[in-house]
Amino acid sequence: MNSNPYRIYLTEDEIPRQWYNVRADMKEQHAPYLHPATHKPLVKEDLLPIFCDELCDQEMNTTDRYIDIPEEVRDFYRIFRPSPLIRAYKLEKALDTPAKIYYKFEGNNTSGSHKLNSAAAQVYYAKKQGLTSLTTETGAGQWGTALAMACAHFGMDLTVYMVKVSFEQKPFRKAVINTFGADIVPSPSDTTQVGRAILKAHPGTGGSLGCAISEAVEASINTPNCRYVLGSVLNQVLLHQSIIGLESKAAFEKIGEYPDTVIGCAGGGSNLGGLMAVFLQDTLNGTRKGTEFIAVEPASCPSLTRGRYAYDFCDTGHVTPLAPMYTLGSEFIPSANHAGGLRYHGMSPILSKLYHDGYMKAVAVEQSKVFEAATYFAKHETILPAPESAHAIRTAIDEAIKCRESGEAKTIFFGLTGTGYFDMNAYTSYLEGTMTDFIPTDEELQKGFDTLPTI
Amino acid sequence: MNSNPYRIYLTEDEIPRQWYNVRADMKEQHAPYLHPATHKPLVKEDLLPIFCDELCDQEMNTTDRYIDIPEEVRDFYRIFRPSPLIRAYKLEKALDTPAKIYYKFEGNNTSGSHKLNSAAAQVYYAKKQGLTSLTTETGAGQWGTALAMACAHFGMDLTVYMVKVSFEQKPFRKAVINTFGADIVPSPSDTTQVGRAILKAHPGTGGSLGCAISEAVEASINTPNCRYVLGSVLNQVLLHQSIIGLESKAAFEKIGEYPDTVIGCAGGGSNLGGLMAVFLQDTLNGTRKGTEFIAVEPASCPSLTRGRYAYDFCDTGHVTPLAPMYTLGSEFIPSANHAGGLRYHGMSPILSKLYHDGYMKAVAVEQSKVFEAATYFAKHETILPAPESAHAIRTAIDEAIKCRESGEAKTIFFGLTGTGYFDMNAYTSYLEGTMTDFIPTDEELQKGFDTLPTI
Repeated sequence: MNSNPYRIYLTEDEIPRQWYNVRADMKEQHAPYLHPATHKPLVKEDLLPIFCDELCDQEMNTTDRYIDIPEEVRDFYRIFRPSPLIRAYKLEKALDTPAKIYYKFEGNNTSGSHKLNSAAAQVYYAKKQGLTSLTTETGAGQWGTALAMACAHFGMDLTVYMVKVSFEQKPFRKAVINTFGADIVPSPSDTTQVGRAILKAHPGTGGSLGCAISEAVEASINTPNCRYVLGSVLNQVLLHQSIIGLESKAAFEKIGEYPDTVIGCAGGGSNLGGLMAVFLQDTLNGTRKGTEFIAVEPASCPSLTRGRYAYDFCDTGHVTPLAPMYTLGSEFIPSANHAGGLRYHGMSPILSKLYHDGYMKAVAVEQSKVFEAATYFAKHETILPAPESAHAIRTAIDEAIKCRESGEAKTIFFGLTGTGYFDMNAYTSYLEGTMTDFIPTDEELQKGFDTLPTI
Repeated sequence: MNSNPYRIYLTEDEIPRQWYNVRADMKEQHAPYLHPATHKPLVKEDLLPIFCDELCDQEMNTTDRYIDIPEEVRDFYRIFRPSPLIRAYKLEKALDTPAKIYYKFEGNNTSGSHKLNSAAAQVYYAKKQGLTSLTTETGAGQWGTALAMACAHFGMDLTVYMVKVSFEQKPFRKAVINTFGADIVPSPSDTTQVGRAILKAHPGTGGSLGCAISEAVEASINTPNCRYVLGSVLNQVLLHQSIIGLESKAAFEKIGEYPDTVIGCAGGGSNLGGLMAVFLQDTLNGTRKGTEFIAVEPASCPSLTRGRYAYDFCDTGHVTPLAPMYTLGSEFIPSANHAGGLRYHGMSPILSKLYHDGYMKAVAVEQSKVFEAATYFAKHETILPAPESAHAIRTAIDEAIKCRESGEAKTIFFGLTGTGYFDMNAYTSYLEGTMTDFIPTDEELQKGFDTLPTI
């Protein structure tokens, strides 16, 4: 291998054969989910009507450190994995920083993001159980596209409830999802009870992930031989996404490097959770000290930095269990002028617990600063990033600038979750100077906190 | 290496250090270009006002078999190359064919296509000569995007004249090109004399590559320290694109394979010329016998299959030299309902000569059949192809089906030039059943042939 490669690829044989379950190494587990009606700790049986059986097991599994990736899923992974670990030589030079910057690029598949890692697993388990259709929500559209691709691969019907504001910002997501044979419905819609209720209470709303989840869950329950699947937040999703970190760590080992700082954007937490897990393992078991983990969230939807650590519903319609998490309240709907994903009111229970226990930092960044970083990155690294990914880029650039000022030659590593091909309306708005930032006031946030049960 | 890999990657060290110039091995050269005013054979000096010096040399070079890739270009290539050679296991299985199907995927860079290979070279030479700006045309937008990326990398101003019908079909191309800092003008426009003349003669025209070339050439001549660059047709472009075939051949050698059939879509010829060159070398020097080369063009713009082999202008406004090529006449404008690129009236002089001399076959395929293949391919291989690339997919599938019927286990190899992220309007039209085919009548074509000088 070249001594200073741009892109480090594992071979196909080196694609991990097991996912890593960080909960097996966590000193303390997050508090249990609660049943939405009884508020009692949830047991696996409560989840069975919602998720397929194997995924219910994975959701509850706190003991198995490694879980085998089924051969059929690995076979699908081989179509688009391993993904490259890329050294950002051009960005480093442009920033004149002594830092080394690396990113794991998950956008080199048609879904354009890391979401395909969990979609492949979830659809496979549903198919294995003999189910015939699935429902889901999607925000920016990456999860919906990934799931449509996986459903086309394994042979499964799919209906996607897409957050209405994203549906309108990204008209071509519909065409892609349709090309793979799935149906798409802008949410809130009049196709579900919960959708109709939300529309009545908030006429003209642009929707939120929380609304779309409620609709998808209701639709799955009313469809025979169907289950609901979720693209983030859940423990099972972080488990599947651990492949991002596993591959990254193996690639770093090939070049004798290890990151000082691990940075990921965080909406529901699927990317960052998967990226950081295997590096955090080294911190948890004492192999490594001083590695810094940073979650980057939008200032317009700041669940970690300004939310409450409490029990909250995963959805707006309150049909799902309550999860222990940093939340802005399940009725929080981000401003329509916030582009892209990262619009979820809560944060993964695992990441919430890690943040609460001091293993992870969090920063919130404003949209205009994010697009400034996205455009700068595109010009130097040639990849057009998704707005979500550009949150991590913003913070990686900020960290690299700090290194320039301090003279430290840190190794900065961030997750580049996807491409921005379907976000050109947002790029145009940035380029034309019409993009605005939105930061909720304390009063606006307080409304969501008033009724949250404590953990 | 795995014994049956999906994707074969070269290492960065194995990225070719030289382009291959197929003309050094051709038994006969194409007839010379002619000066547009005198109709005398063109000499290098005639080209100097249009192209930068090094590219004029490359355009005329029939003797040097290999030409060094400058280190700065190779350094840029390393950002997005090597590209993978992919075994289409899923497609083979779906087609139930004994054929092995491979494709070289050039879409894994932000420009979404192979065009970046030549953009990198052309911008580098212009920069080295001390030029400060460039003009160009773009059809589907892939070349304009690639050039904008290369100009951002090397530091060069750029104005892109984009065929108006594509500009309207693909609104987000503008945003991408702007993100990389370049200007874009829908063509024909009122910014040039030739554009105004075309608009007057054909009010409401959707434009053509030939129109856009005329405008870009005029604009470059009227701008100080500026030259014009072209993304296809020219010998220099095929030279740069030879890297596609060189990498493919090296990857095939790694797995002990060699294609029986090489298939590429052909508009101006840049992709197919680059894909096939080094395999054709083996045919020309007698190392291999029986390799089949197939150009696939749209039935709506059938320069090889229904055009004339004659001298013709490269542009509609007749400001460029005449080239010896298969052509539909420089005033031919494809129907607006033809999606994507491959809208050029002529074909690369090298490919035209090879076709004329029987080294290459050509087929024309209808748009609806192309999108049928594109959608089928996407579902099985997960990559959403560009409409241009899907022409090659259509023919590769047809060849694989022939193998199923004959029982032959051929090795079929095609170029997957790019992704279809910016072509979702066309996909939607196909999915909704509103896509129509267009095949020009003999009478319509005859009009373009009447005044062509013979070779």
